[in-house]
Amino acid sequence: MTVAGSPSSSATDLSRTETLSLVTLSGASLAILANTFHGDGEPLIASLALSLIAFSLCYAMIRWLGPTFIKAGFRGRDLSKVNGVEIPECMGAVCAAVYLITVIIFIPFPFYKDIVAATSGGGNRDVVVEIQYADEGRFLHRFPHNKLASYLGAIISLQTIALLGIGDDLFDIRWRHKWWIPGLASIPLLVVYFVDFDVTSIVIPVQLQPYLGELFDLGFLYYVYMACVAMFCPQSINMFAGINGIEVSQCIVVSLLIAFNDCLYLFTPYPHPATDSHLFSLYFLLPWIGVSCALLYHNWYPAKVFVGDTYCYFSGMVFAVVGILGHFSKTLGLLLVPQLFNFLYSCPQIFGLIPCPRHRLPKFNARTGLMEPSITPWSPDRQPHPLVAQALLFLHRVRLVKVTTDEKGLFVETSNLTLLNLWLVWRGPLKENRLALEVTMLQLGVGLFGLFVRHKLALLIFKEDNWGSTGQH
Amino acid sequence: MTVAGSPSSSATDLSRTETLSLVTLSGASLAILANTFHGDGEPLIASLALSLIAFSLCYAMIRWLGPTFIKAGFRGRDLSKVNGVEIPECMGAVCAAVYLITVIIFIPFPFYKDIVAATSGGGNRDVVVEIQYADEGRFLHRFPHNKLASYLGAIISLQTIALLGIGDDLFDIRWRHKWWIPGLASIPLLVVYFVDFDVTSIVIPVQLQPYLGELFDLGFLYYVYMACVAMFCPQSINMFAGINGIEVSQCIVVSLLIAFNDCLYLFTPYPHPATDSHLFSLYFLLPWIGVSCALLYHNWYPAKVFVGDTYCYFSGMVFAVVGILGHFSKTLGLLLVPQLFNFLYSCPQIFGLIPCPRHRLPKFNARTGLMEPSITPWSPDRQPHPLVAQALLFLHRVRLVKVTTDEKGLFVETSNLTLLNLWLVWRGPLKENRLALEVTMLQLGVGLFGLFVRHKLALLIFKEDNWGSTGQH
Repeated sequence: MTVAGSPSSSATDLSRTETLSLVTLSGASLAILANTFHGDGEPLIASLALSLIAFSLCYAMIRWLGPTFIKAGFRGRDLSKVNGVEIPECMGAVCAAVYLITVIIFIPFPFYKDIVAATSGGGNRDVVVEIQYADEGRFLHRFPHNKLASYLGAIISLQTIALLGIGDDLFDIRWRHKWWIPGLASIPLLVVYFVDFDVTSIVIPVQLQPYLGELFDLGFLYYVYMACVAMFCPQSINMFAGINGIEVSQCIVVSLLIAFNDCLYLFTPYPHPATDSHLFSLYFLLPWIGVSCALLYHNWYPAKVFVGDTYCYFSGMVFAVVGILGHFSKTLGLLLVPQLFNFLYSCPQIFGLIPCPRHRLPKFNARTGLMEPSITPWSPDRQPHPLVAQALLFLHRVRLVKVTTDEKGLFVETSNLTLLNLWLVWRGPLKENRLALEVTMLQLGVGLFGLFVRHKLALLIFKEDNWGSTGQH
Repeated sequence: MTVAGSPSSSATDLSRTETLSLVTLSGASLAILANTFHGDGEPLIASLALSLIAFSLCYAMIRWLGPTFIKAGFRGRDLSKVNGVEIPECMGAVCAAVYLITVIIFIPFPFYKDIVAATSGGGNRDVVVEIQYADEGRFLHRFPHNKLASYLGAIISLQTIALLGIGDDLFDIRWRHKWWIPGLASIPLLVVYFVDFDVTSIVIPVQLQPYLGELFDLGFLYYVYMACVAMFCPQSINMFAGINGIEVSQCIVVSLLIAFNDCLYLFTPYPHPATDSHLFSLYFLLPWIGVSCALLYHNWYPAKVFVGDTYCYFSGMVFAVVGILGHFSKTLGLLLVPQLFNFLYSCPQIFGLIPCPRHRLPKFNARTGLMEPSITPWSPDRQPHPLVAQALLFLHRVRLVKVTTDEKGLFVETSNLTLLNLWLVWRGPLKENRLALEVTMLQLGVGLFGLFVRHKLALLIFKEDNWGSTGQH
């Protein structure tokens, strides 16, 4: 059992170049970090520096912990390789741990007080302290105090999803129950939102305002909406998986797009009222981009580690957290269009209209070395329901699924309903890394278009935006 | 491998009496909980009701999840039983999970707002909201807002220790590294304390005030002190283990004593200034008592489940959190005197002056069915250092260790240096449950005496206490 770990333990040490690069990077980042103490705190610079340190730490730890993970049973075989050796699984847990430490250590930077109430307390502070004096000294120069509660609530949600994700990887939770994991993890976020903010109104599109008013209070339903966002992001990312690197690369693309969107609000000619929300979002995204890059290096084709469900769940929760607390969950939706498509496209298999094999990842053809669409086989005595058959044939005509029929018109096989398989139906057999790259580029293209729509066309249905307003404010 | 799970899966279902009791208890608690919505919120009643629900949930889940844990490799054999069957290990993780859900769901009760700022926001709240109006509505009728940050920081620390504890149970972390686990988990607590409170002065005893002043600012050292408290509590509880039920029973006793101490502040004739700190402490302790009782039922002799390091770490962290944030870490120390003694008493073995076998738990004598002190054997060619030998012989004379020497005066064996073994040296062989009960009673007695000292004698060295002051306030 432990012998399986030995072949990879030789690859555990960092090479001299790697060590040197990581140490240099960390050293430079520490210097930048130390420098932020001089001035105004500069939390954004600090966040960048901490993210670089997180990258280095995560990079080294993924390498070091490989054999430990294999020994503890977190290991798997790559189905899309000719000679599949066992490689460590669930490395997303390392990313999550490094990320959590980073965002916790970061807390004093945006929330640091200028004046420290040094003499206002004692062992039994509640007795001794003079309240007026203490409150006077409690001045936060960056974020107001209620942002701290949101920040901490977000961390709790992220930690919960990490705990549950690890539990999932350990206990092999059934699909039916898995669905609720992100829902459970969203509870801390929603509870803190309720206590701290509790704004449940939405802005009504201009066209509908004569009928519904300017704002519409969703009340309880707003919490259901937020829970759905928090459930959708992790699950849809977890579904859009199966080939080396795709989970991590899509998450990096989405993170970069959200970060780009945040920057649009930060570098406006006038200070934008939503600056805080978007700073908040950046503080959560930058370290995640850092640790994800470290993971991508090891998970890109040919993968030396697997990411595990933990990574997908956690990453989705990071997006949900910044989307919900930054109040741009609709924009987030635009960036996750490929995931949304993949989810809707998968529904017929999820809900049993079409049989769903255990693995739907693209099939590796060992002869050509290329990936091909994986298929669901049909036998003559087990054919789809006539309506389903009609729908499948229609989808085949519009090239949204590949159906093979025999001379009698009976279904022989249909391609599995995932975006990766569909891409292969369109583009023909591809090498694994080529497929991952193309789909990542698709994600980037769709996301950029989504942001364009968000910022150029949103003014048609909403009164205000970051680049201007229709003048009614 | 999975076959090992089958014998206990028959014991998985709750009996009809159990189901009925648990459902009744939960139902009654839910009714109480619903009732607290009518009045002022009554968070303490809500906390009690939630703790009862947590007890029921934890009780049922420990039973249900047993086979799952065994299947996932969390299983162990009881060394102190004649026919040791494999039973589930690491059940403290279940307690921790139920506890965390409880304290998170509890958040709206103490922090609930009377006035909900219902119409003050929208999709992009930062643009639309009118700040003055929104802030007006943000009135918290129980706890001030900075308590929320402390509460959330505490949850993050507890979640971190749960994550690390599970990591420890999974990866078999070396003893050397284990030591730092609670230190790592205390970081969130300390960071939030720094941002939120940052009072680092201590009250100087009256006798020393002429030299040092009334308050002494420890500065950075205060954080080191808090980190030490957070590291000591979990480790010392983890050390004071080894027989069925002892980990859980000591934690319940300590929790009850802290809760009793909290009540002393709540039911004073005048509203005590430290009320909030002690309410805060109760909110964290009551659910922990709830889940611990559920665990004790299953872990008491003869144990049907093991608790795992996770439980000890988590429990210690609960105490550290309430002690630090409630500002009664010195009182906490008085309640943990047996753990402190056990730690100091163990030091010679920890630091290698005396060889330390892997397990130091009392030895089970299968012939008598009683527990006896476990021993460290000495061979004629491997005798203790002369100084250590002198010390051991002295301790033997004052009955603090049992030394057996042969006719030539050479050491044959010495009892292992743990409180449980010492108790057996004093009391002679005992049945396992008898030993657990007696040591628990010792913990209770020492703790009650500690509280007496705290409240009756503290006025001799400090100016103020909850029951009165020397009149200088």
